[in-house]
Amino acid sequence: MRVLITAGGTSEKIDDVRSITNHSTGKLGSLIAEAFLTHDVTIDYVTTATTLRPASDKVNIHEIAGTQELADTLQNLLQQQPYDAVIHSMAVSDFTPEKSLSQEDFLTKINQLIARQQPLTAEDLTVLTEDTAAKENKISSNTDHLFLILKKTPKVIQQIKQLQPATILVGFKLLVDVSKEELVDVARHSLIKNQADYVLANDLTSIHHGQHVGYFINKEGTIIGEATSKEAIAQLIVKTLLDTL
Amino acid sequence: MRVLITAGGTSEKIDDVRSITNHSTGKLGSLIAEAFLTHDVTIDYVTTATTLRPASDKVNIHEIAGTQELADTLQNLLQQQPYDAVIHSMAVSDFTPEKSLSQEDFLTKINQLIARQQPLTAEDLTVLTEDTAAKENKISSNTDHLFLILKKTPKVIQQIKQLQPATILVGFKLLVDVSKEELVDVARHSLIKNQADYVLANDLTSIHHGQHVGYFINKEGTIIGEATSKEAIAQLIVKTLLDTL
Repeated sequence: MRVLITAGGTSEKIDDVRSITNHSTGKLGSLIAEAFLTHDVTIDYVTTATTLRPASDKVNIHEIAGTQELADTLQNLLQQQPYDAVIHSMAVSDFTPEKSLSQEDFLTKINQLIARQQPLTAEDLTVLTEDTAAKENKISSNTDHLFLILKKTPKVIQQIKQLQPATILVGFKLLVDVSKEELVDVARHSLIKNQADYVLANDLTSIHHGQHVGYFINKEGTIIGEATSKEAIAQLIVKTLLDTL
Repeated sequence: MRVLITAGGTSEKIDDVRSITNHSTGKLGSLIAEAFLTHDVTIDYVTTATTLRPASDKVNIHEIAGTQELADTLQNLLQQQPYDAVIHSMAVSDFTPEKSLSQEDFLTKINQLIARQQPLTAEDLTVLTEDTAAKENKISSNTDHLFLILKKTPKVIQQIKQLQPATILVGFKLLVDVSKEELVDVARHSLIKNQADYVLANDLTSIHHGQHVGYFINKEGTIIGEATSKEAIAQLIVKTLLDTL
């Protein structure tokens, strides 16, 4: 059996000294790997430099930082060998910095647009992200406000089934402070959109002090399991996959 | 002898799952603490949850995350007891997120401003950061671009001498890919502005594979020492301070 696990949170560079980071200790991904390791398995484990990781010679670690690097690494791995299952628990940045403008540069550009005396459309906004000066290695702090324009990253999870339609894909959906109904509903939609076979739905407000509430949902949208700790979630996911495989 | 050391990099929350993080392993701060520990010293050590730290019962750890928390912690400590020296090696965020707008909300607000048919001024930009809807716990990814408006953080280092004029303050200046001349010049200016007694000037491009070039500059603006590794920089700083104290 060969499985691919992603864990931790990606970081998107703003400049050479700052990043936008998605929080994730990687603990859950690490527990999922450990639950698999009691069986005959080889694991490819994609994670970041600072994340918790399982220690075993049956685990091949692949380090990434940003979303593009994650996409490239997954593509390489998925093209090299078939996986029985892919568990994509990594918290991936939805946006990556495209351009930063000082308050002064922002006003200058906006006022150039205004001078045309037409309402702005989405296309006009490309003017804001155009390159003007040389690329800055470290953004100067010499302005009262900084305008950071971020663009959407490609949905990494959606390439998994495109490259390996036969693998069993487990996705994750994390929301913050919503009802169970909304959480499960949004998770079901993400499952369909990402062609996942299962999705683990969880809410940040129910993750603290060792507690971690998760709902495990299958392709039909049915909640097939509930757990209240990271250990129990890991067991639930791995047991379900082993029963299926 | 009692010294206060800050080390690591601050994180500014964008929402409940994302932050802007200043990179810093905290290694240099940790080595400075260790160099002090061979002498009779008590150290207050302000750092973040994920940063390397010295292990000794003569080191009191104070954990912070964001710039405001850092400012509050330093104020408390500096009001409680006198320090012989303060070594402020932490990489502090210059900006903190004030508001995030989807592309759609950004266009709506900008077009309201444009309708007045006057060029925008800095004051107009407050409209962009006004609260409209309820605060979002997790920014929706349902937009092509995200506009993140960041405001300047207060200069934490500048409160140190205000609270303790008699302490010896060591600041740090990190630039990226500039000439030695420019680096030293900018570091000298920061020293004066921050009322520091010494500043360690370094360039990110000369920090790699165990190498770390640093210039140690005194109040008069003279380079009083050069070092090419973190260990040597730590020794240089601590020796200079011990000779002065």
